Amino acid sequence: MIEKVFRDPIHHDIKVEHPIILELINAKEFQRLRRIKQLGTTSLTFHTAEHSRFGHSLGVYEITRRICNYFKRNYDVAEFGEDGWDDSERLITLCAALLHDVGHGPYSHTFESIFKTNHEQLTVDIITSSDTEINKILRQVSDDFPEKVASVIAKTYPNKQVVQLISSQIDADRMDYLLRDAYFTGTEYGTFDLTRILRVIRPHKSGIVFKVSGMHAVEDYIVSRYQMYMQIYFHPVSRGMEMVLDRLLQRAQDLYQDNKHYFVKASPLLVPFLSHEFNLEDYLALDDGVLTTAFHLWSQSDDAILNDLSKRFLNRVPFKSATFSKKTFILLPELQELVEKVGFDERYYTAINSSFDLPYDFYKPEKLQNKTQIELIYPDGQLIELASASELVRAIAGESKGDQRFYFPNEMLASNSLDNYTLFEDSINLFSNSIKNGEIIKKDV
Amino acid sequence: MIEKVFRDPIHHDIKVEHPIILELINAKEFQRLRRIKQLGTTSLTFHTAEHSRFGHSLGVYEITRRICNYFKRNYDVAEFGEDGWDDSERLITLCAALLHDVGHGPYSHTFESIFKTNHEQLTVDIITSSDTEINKILRQVSDDFPEKVASVIAKTYPNKQVVQLISSQIDADRMDYLLRDAYFTGTEYGTFDLTRILRVIRPHKSGIVFKVSGMHAVEDYIVSRYQMYMQIYFHPVSRGMEMVLDRLLQRAQDLYQDNKHYFVKASPLLVPFLSHEFNLEDYLALDDGVLTTAFHLWSQSDDAILNDLSKRFLNRVPFKSATFSKKTFILLPELQELVEKVGFDERYYTAINSSFDLPYDFYKPEKLQNKTQIELIYPDGQLIELASASELVRAIAGESKGDQRFYFPNEMLASNSLDNYTLFEDSINLFSNSIKNGEIIKKDV
Amino acid sequence: MIEKVFRDPIHHDIKVEHPIILELINAKEFQRLRRIKQLGTTSLTFHTAEHSRFGHSLGVYEITRRICNYFKRNYDVAEFGEDGWDDSERLITLCAALLHDVGHGPYSHTFESIFKTNHEQLTVDIITSSDTEINKILRQVSDDFPEKVASVIAKTYPNKQVVQLISSQIDADRMDYLLRDAYFTGTEYGTFDLTRILRVIRPHKSGIVFKVSGMHAVEDYIVSRYQMYMQIYFHPVSRGMEMVLDRLLQRAQDLYQDNKHYFVKASPLLVPFLSHEFNLEDYLALDDGVLTTAFHLWSQSDDAILNDLSKRFLNRVPFKSATFSKKTFILLPELQELVEKVGFDERYYTAINSSFDLPYDFYKPEKLQNKTQIELIYPDGQLIELASASELVRAIAGESKGDQRFYFPNEMLASNSLDNYTLFEDSINLFSNSIKNGEIIKKDV
Amino acid sequence: MIEKVFRDPIHHDIKVEHPIILELINAKEFQRLRRIKQLGTTSLTFHTAEHSRFGHSLGVYEITRRICNYFKRNYDVAEFGEDGWDDSERLITLCAALLHDVGHGPYSHTFESIFKTNHEQLTVDIITSSDTEINKILRQVSDDFPEKVASVIAKTYPNKQVVQLISSQIDADRMDYLLRDAYFTGTEYGTFDLTRILRVIRPHKSGIVFKVSGMHAVEDYIVSRYQMYMQIYFHPVSRGMEMVLDRLLQRAQDLYQDNKHYFVKASPLLVPFLSHEFNLEDYLALDDGVLTTAFHLWSQSDDAILNDLSKRFLNRVPFKSATFSKKTFILLPELQELVEKVGFDERYYTAINSSFDLPYDFYKPEKLQNKTQIELIYPDGQLIELASASELVRAIAGESKGDQRFYFPNEMLASNSLDNYTLFEDSINLFSNSIKNGEIIKKDV
Repeated sequence: MIEKVFRDPIHHDIKVEHPIILELINAKEFQRLRRIKQLGTTSLTFHTAEHSRFGHSLGVYEITRRICNYFKRNYDVAEFGEDGWDDSERLITLCAALLHDVGHGPYSHTFESIFKTNHEQLTVDIITSSDTEINKILRQVSDDFPEKVASVIAKTYPNKQVVQLISSQIDADRMDYLLRDAYFTGTEYGTFDLTRILRVIRPHKSGIVFKVSGMHAVEDYIVSRYQMYMQIYFHPVSRGMEMVLDRLLQRAQDLYQDNKHYFVKASPLLVPFLSHEFNLEDYLALDDGVLTTAFHLWSQSDDAILNDLSKRFLNRVPFKSATFSKKTFILLPELQELVEKVGFDERYYTAINSSFDLPYDFYKPEKLQNKTQIELIYPDGQLIELASASELVRAIAGESKGDQRFYFPNEMLASNSLDNYTLFEDSINLFSNSIKNGEIIKKDV
Repeated sequence: MIEKVFRDPIHHDIKVEHPIILELINAKEFQRLRRIKQLGTTSLTFHTAEHSRFGHSLGVYEITRRICNYFKRNYDVAEFGEDGWDDSERLITLCAALLHDVGHGPYSHTFESIFKTNHEQLTVDIITSSDTEINKILRQVSDDFPEKVASVIAKTYPNKQVVQLISSQIDADRMDYLLRDAYFTGTEYGTFDLTRILRVIRPHKSGIVFKVSGMHAVEDYIVSRYQMYMQIYFHPVSRGMEMVLDRLLQRAQDLYQDNKHYFVKASPLLVPFLSHEFNLEDYLALDDGVLTTAFHLWSQSDDAILNDLSKRFLNRVPFKSATFSKKTFILLPELQELVEKVGFDERYYTAINSSFDLPYDFYKPEKLQNKTQIELIYPDGQLIELASASELVRAIAGESKGDQRFYFPNEMLASNSLDNYTLFEDSINLFSNSIKNGEIIKKDV
Repeated sequence: MIEKVFRDPIHHDIKVEHPIILELINAKEFQRLRRIKQLGTTSLTFHTAEHSRFGHSLGVYEITRRICNYFKRNYDVAEFGEDGWDDSERLITLCAALLHDVGHGPYSHTFESIFKTNHEQLTVDIITSSDTEINKILRQVSDDFPEKVASVIAKTYPNKQVVQLISSQIDADRMDYLLRDAYFTGTEYGTFDLTRILRVIRPHKSGIVFKVSGMHAVEDYIVSRYQMYMQIYFHPVSRGMEMVLDRLLQRAQDLYQDNKHYFVKASPLLVPFLSHEFNLEDYLALDDGVLTTAFHLWSQSDDAILNDLSKRFLNRVPFKSATFSKKTFILLPELQELVEKVGFDERYYTAINSSFDLPYDFYKPEKLQNKTQIELIYPDGQLIELASASELVRAIAGESKGDQRFYFPNEMLASNSLDNYTLFEDSINLFSNSIKNGEIIKKDV
Repeated sequence: MIEKVFRDPIHHDIKVEHPIILELINAKEFQRLRRIKQLGTTSLTFHTAEHSRFGHSLGVYEITRRICNYFKRNYDVAEFGEDGWDDSERLITLCAALLHDVGHGPYSHTFESIFKTNHEQLTVDIITSSDTEINKILRQVSDDFPEKVASVIAKTYPNKQVVQLISSQIDADRMDYLLRDAYFTGTEYGTFDLTRILRVIRPHKSGIVFKVSGMHAVEDYIVSRYQMYMQIYFHPVSRGMEMVLDRLLQRAQDLYQDNKHYFVKASPLLVPFLSHEFNLEDYLALDDGVLTTAFHLWSQSDDAILNDLSKRFLNRVPFKSATFSKKTFILLPELQELVEKVGFDERYYTAINSSFDLPYDFYKPEKLQNKTQIELIYPDGQLIELASASELVRAIAGESKGDQRFYFPNEMLASNSLDNYTLFEDSINLFSNSIKNGEIIKKDV
């Protein structure tokens, strides 16, 4: 086929060389990713982070393609098992790279927690269900090709190199999203030396390894990822908007049984989820716009809570927050009570959000399920695990990083924004005094 | 107030120093700009150009703020009229910069042409209508402040410096969108030396001028803008999607009278526009997602055309095109007929799109309405018009650049995609032979 | 061989895949390029433009390598003559690319004009002289390989594709230096879309052509080059330092015959050039540092002019300038006389510098020697010359752009810097009044 | 004065607003920094790292200027001692920033170790000696101004804010060189979020502190600095060239007493240093070119070692290396002996290089001299030391990082490059077998 190029600010050119890849990109299930923002509510904190899962999926494909080319040029072998790369795995690897996120829906994390959808399972379904365009395209290769592609994403494919390129602690997915999210948020944190990593990556009979001479580039990638989580992905304000969304969807869910007619009228595309009777086609009709359009209509609803939370989401009025610890956890009921006293239903106007990520993990004999650790390889073939070689990585390895926060309406702090402030003065003062430097504290008695 | 910063990849920090500005940004009418893509269907050609009008509006504000600072530091005078800058104009200038696009709706160009809305008028309405949050905020400054801000945008404000900063052939609006659109499309064309331009810009009693030593920076800006139009904004494929959208909305409009009930159910938020009875509140409930959500529902409609065009838009199946000239214009009816013969209703499956822009214009005595030309200033105060000083600018000045294209379904070329191809073989061959190197040509008889 | 990589900010990785290339880079004649600044006195205006010819030479090699790869992947043919690329030309092309500037010396332009050296001839000599390391390395390929490489640089090699890749109006040399000089000066002017150009370049039986779909990228390259000349390469202050250097070397030359002993002692490495009896080895011992070291010693000389001009160069005290035209050319003797009156020997303290470049040229039947014009190719194989397709290019084609300036000591303007100013007040006033807005003007009588 | 701008790729515009600063930049002692590379032999590993100390000095000035502006805008107080910034300190701070490196000479580290010069003392001398242009310019402010500026650099100035801006663990010097060296080497490691740091920096009565909300930006800066040391500044190949230089200068020093006449002729500008009788003027005549010019002449010397090492330096033939530990240190004499056996004088052909840096240090009661630790400040004024707040910083704090290497001629490994290889086969094999994976190892007996 004639090489087709997608211009991309991260990778300059994304090159499509195989007709199957081009058809997959044009499939309606894939085009739908254009309507789903990569970072959900993060764009409400970093206003330029409005990029979609479409570009990210292309980027993962492109990084994978470059690695395949590099492997082919330098480590070509006839068959996996030797210390090299079997290039007959290329097409399956590229398809898995491109499709690894195809099951994502709008504001995935929140949507899934309320409606019990599962984007990983849905990715597999979209690939293997005979009703999708994607499945039809993949079946042109062979009847069992869709299942094979799905098995790469499900990590059950026998060739560990292929699996690890798509999902491991240093895979094409993570490499693309760090660079892409850094570009679109306008931060420096996510930048690392992709060029150098693509020069020290190696196929190995045990999977994917990295030349020890590239240790600092891998280290830099781990540190960048850690910083992106701490600075961008876990930003308290984005989570404040996520909590508004979460409570809003919960309110709709709670109202549904007694107001079916209303929801059929105001948000027909969401009914299959409110009723927990959705099929793949229903799911594929979802996108960010479908949710916000529902919120437009809900914001005219008679239910004060549905109405108000919809407006808070559309007009970006995030919940505020304070961190809490194991010690101060017991104070939350008291704070919820104060929120209630001021007139907010605490079930919909308070929330707890725990955001933790494990920056890097290594093998621990006591754990049943271990992540594949990152291995570096010496010139003489000896392997060394990354955290053993890097003090920086060791410092953040093995333990989840993040915080847990209690969320509440901004009115609890910005007291004067309440019309009838004097009525609630005492409660608001008590509440405000429970927070210092952003943390919930024990009040002195 | 405590300085607030918006992180931005184009300007690094966007600094908010005045509480009115912060309140305006938080107003719901302004937050709505987050849900309207800056470049509409261009993101369907340049997949990362998914940025919204929100970021652009902040950017225009920031460039204006920097110019005000520079003017204040270097050309401070007590009152406009002298050759300097009267800094009491700052707040009105900043408000106008921030709000200049607040009346934009989803896919403005197409939407306006079908539904006869007018984003410029709507911008003025949002600012001056007493019902909006924005109006309330502006009125805190003074009762006539909203009208004053609106008059800057309408170019009737007496201080020409203020007006020209916001809208002229080299204004903060254009400077921001060139850099921003270049960043998000991932091209180099739109880049020019903003830093240098912000160093040679000068307030003058006649408006805004530029030091002659910065001529090449201004020239580069004009050339960049020209290239962005030719390469990005007028891209034939984006216009192919715009034509799909245009025909789709037209179909809905044509169906509406006889199918009111259907549209009330499937797309309630669009009914005020289909019925041409919208008010400001209706308009402010629109965004990109409202349109695509309507298309989701329309794509299940019984009307074959509404159904099919909705799918073409959602699944990105652009109309194809060929350029035509004054000479070949007369061939179009013939081609439309062939489209009809193959089974497509030519009213909804063909379209003509003319895209032209005037890269730069200078004063012409014979014209009634002239654009304000760009003036350069010598050390001794003498002015020289830009195109007189720059051969490059002269080459593209005074004449609109662009092309006109005839759009039609891709099936007319990619013949094998039609199920019943053989039936239409002759028509398709005739059609294909009318196009050579992308142009409609006269066939040899 | 094991692939070796040079990290480069312009091209990220410069990849060396052939041992001959690696040996050439390590040759002492090539390493010497590290000690010769790419832009000479331009670094005295743009303080970060201190990069050497070494990096540029690697960059030209890398662009050429990428083009070879692209040609090989897409247009591989067995033999030149067909419309494709014969990859057996690769090594010779890469060697010519790498070595095309190897004969450059310190501050080439000025040095050559005083000492009658010729870097193009010296490039050929270094490649073909049996005494150089470079020659020995090339001869490993075949006995006639050095001559072949030299013939590419001399443009007499039969394969026009090879010749045009290395030197034509859009060659790897120009493409690298524009990007590189833009990066190191910190300007935007030189940036153009290299990625896109490398995607539309094509081998053709007539040489190198570009797909018509890439017209705007080629146009942008031409415009960028024009702007770099106008803004960077022809900057009046850099030329003011070049004129100081020129007059300084001229003074040394003029003094040499009567002061041989002095120069042997103070600047032994320059004696072969002062005496016009240099050989290749003498030339290869030159670099920027050799010149400035001579100036350190000359700045202690008893000759007031040699001493003073040396200090002006080392301490960056450029001559000032004013432009003149055909009309005002006749005023120069008068100005020179005023310079002389103030006490400066006009032979060494005034200079004329004409800097002109032809941004782009096309075939003109009346000219004997024509540049190879840039051709664009349509899908059907038809060719169109660039300026016919692009208005922007047409605007700056066919005519040299630049200016001519009269240079003189800054003391002629900044009068108070002269100790005994009052003595010369009249002359200085007369001089100053002859210049307005940077131009020499006719004084009113 | 009229604002003057230096275009700079790191800071875009470097703005000079005070005539004293402009005069200092034009002083000959400052202009001389253009002829001294910022990173010495590093440019022989990273070929584009050819930038000079001139640009860096301007950059330190610019960062300091921006901090002063930010402090003035936000934390203006009448007098130091309060928690704010006393802007009457601006000029002294800017002068110290600009001049902090003015005493640097060519290849400082190596030159100083051989010739016992001291760039810090020389910086103070240049500022305070009445013979320099810089001193004359500073004295225009007041008679004691030069001493005051020098005292800032010597860290004895009473205002700790001023001192810490210029030299501390997070000062304008380090911030500029990390960004600048990253830019010119073309790596990502040195990049950190300067914009954000300049937004969270605060004057405090104890010196300079950072808002706790900016912790991750400061952390990122520390990590970036660590990575630049590990990846760029301590690169083994650059140090291999530094060792060649070191041994070469040592050889010249050792030969000098018995060959004074030769050195007066071949390298007159170095004689004051070879004889250890230099004055300030001698020092100011030094630059990179003076050294390499001496090497050109020495490379024709009769002394085989001086001759050979000069060529190795000019033609970039670095010594090779292997790391050693406390344990393997005792093996070095044996290896030196093998080098000697192969025919190289081990005094000039082997070297030990220890390169260590302390990435970050905090107060330790047991140490007499402590670095000023970095303090973060909470909203309520409480301070917290950086390493207590950041796990990443803690991981690399308090302990020097780096390695020690044994350097030797490449001929000891690349055996075939020796003409008479077979004679030395045994020694070379023994030598090679003592090194594994880049480390010196104990051989099995």
